[in-house]
Amino acid sequence: MGEPCERVSAFVWLNGALLPESEARLSIFDRGFTLGDGVFETLRVKGGRPLWLADHLARLRQGAAVLGIPVPLDDGAVERGLLGLIEARGCPEASLRLTLSRGPSQARGVWPPALPMTPTLLATLAAFSGAPRPPLALTLARSVRRNEHSPLSSIKSLNYGDSILARREAESRGADDALMMNGAGSIICATVGNIFLRIGGRWVTPPVSDGILAGTARRRLIPLLNAAESSIGPADLDRADAGLISNSLSLSVIGGVDGQQWSDISDLAASLALFEA
Amino acid sequence: MGEPCERVSAFVWLNGALLPESEARLSIFDRGFTLGDGVFETLRVKGGRPLWLADHLARLRQGAAVLGIPVPLDDGAVERGLLGLIEARGCPEASLRLTLSRGPSQARGVWPPALPMTPTLLATLAAFSGAPRPPLALTLARSVRRNEHSPLSSIKSLNYGDSILARREAESRGADDALMMNGAGSIICATVGNIFLRIGGRWVTPPVSDGILAGTARRRLIPLLNAAESSIGPADLDRADAGLISNSLSLSVIGGVDGQQWSDISDLAASLALFEA
Repeated sequence: MGEPCERVSAFVWLNGALLPESEARLSIFDRGFTLGDGVFETLRVKGGRPLWLADHLARLRQGAAVLGIPVPLDDGAVERGLLGLIEARGCPEASLRLTLSRGPSQARGVWPPALPMTPTLLATLAAFSGAPRPPLALTLARSVRRNEHSPLSSIKSLNYGDSILARREAESRGADDALMMNGAGSIICATVGNIFLRIGGRWVTPPVSDGILAGTARRRLIPLLNAAESSIGPADLDRADAGLISNSLSLSVIGGVDGQQWSDISDLAASLALFEA
Repeated sequence: MGEPCERVSAFVWLNGALLPESEARLSIFDRGFTLGDGVFETLRVKGGRPLWLADHLARLRQGAAVLGIPVPLDDGAVERGLLGLIEARGCPEASLRLTLSRGPSQARGVWPPALPMTPTLLATLAAFSGAPRPPLALTLARSVRRNEHSPLSSIKSLNYGDSILARREAESRGADDALMMNGAGSIICATVGNIFLRIGGRWVTPPVSDGILAGTARRRLIPLLNAAESSIGPADLDRADAGLISNSLSLSVIGGVDGQQWSDISDLAASLALFEA
């Protein structure tokens, strides 16, 4: 459990420079803002170090390659920048967001000829205690589904509108979060996390081809739970008796979906020691 | 045909104020940048006036309502702001982009509790001559499809990643633009425009329920062409002999798709006088 991040004279890391937050501004022409043209990573900072950094940087580069955005610094320079930010903020326990966009372009349009690129690379820190939360009451999002026919579903792009809509739907129904389906009707993830369901005593998680992000925590949980990668249909929700939501920051227990009561497996979740590696 | 916009001492309109471009900056925490949490409109400016403004403002408000973002000014105040911008820039012929995001939020996450909202409302102008272009060589995007199962497909959200990927695919194939399918395999639009195909002498355009934006130009073209709203399958591409792409800025003739040669209906397109209303 960490102390909250200091907000006085907060720093951010922008395009290779450590800056006071008050001096860090974006161009109004940044294509991250105008078109969602970029990717990001959210990392947990633990004991002053970004956890699973190599995985996150590899995924950032993979997503940037899908969009054709050059990453302006090598991994060593990014790591030095993030460590400098963590130290400057005095934030040994935190969440860290690293965002890469194609940068500002005054040329109009989705893909103007000879698109100039000066990518924006930004890291910010936010308080994150890591304290476990009580089991989450979920609902199945009905107003929006994720698109398994887009490469964006398997990279962490800035296009988070579908998750925002699903989260709003959950809030309107008094739920903590939503499970999301893909276009084919398979249940594939929560709004910001991968899902693992226990069905008939076996753990199951959807395959990446169903339209999900290949989570850094998911990759570590699959062997820990001996989970099968297999599509999950709506009928499977009735057969499940426990579930987990994983992302780079936390492992949450699913309390139930749409009024169902599942087993409270908080002790099991804690015993996995996912973030202790 | 207008003169190019003056770029010296360019102005933008940001949160109700006319500002020199050099002074207009965004917060690094703007949710438009971090999550694509916003909507926009692109308008044609003709003779110093924004064309079809009421339609665009109605669609902006409708999209903002889907995302739950308050529009901070009434339509009259927005119109006065846009007219002031057009005059300050000396840009009687231009394209105008109006962007609304949920604004900056230092609270982490997709939908933090008690999300504070100070929306960002930004208008920028860019040169746009309105000169007709030669017929466009198109390709059918194979790497990405649009999501007909998301409300985002029928609002003009900041989530333009799928169109960016399709446009990049078109460029890699030497085409001017791409046609896009939805998850069901229907052909529904170009990357930034609605489509009309002439099949067996009748004009057809996909229905909004196929996952498209209800274009302001599309609405005017349907009666002009006496077009039927009907889904378009891949086989229909082989039966089509002419086509148009419409958006708020221009009406483009489709020269052909993936090597097919369609009729050059540039004279017909000009005779519709779509932007003369």
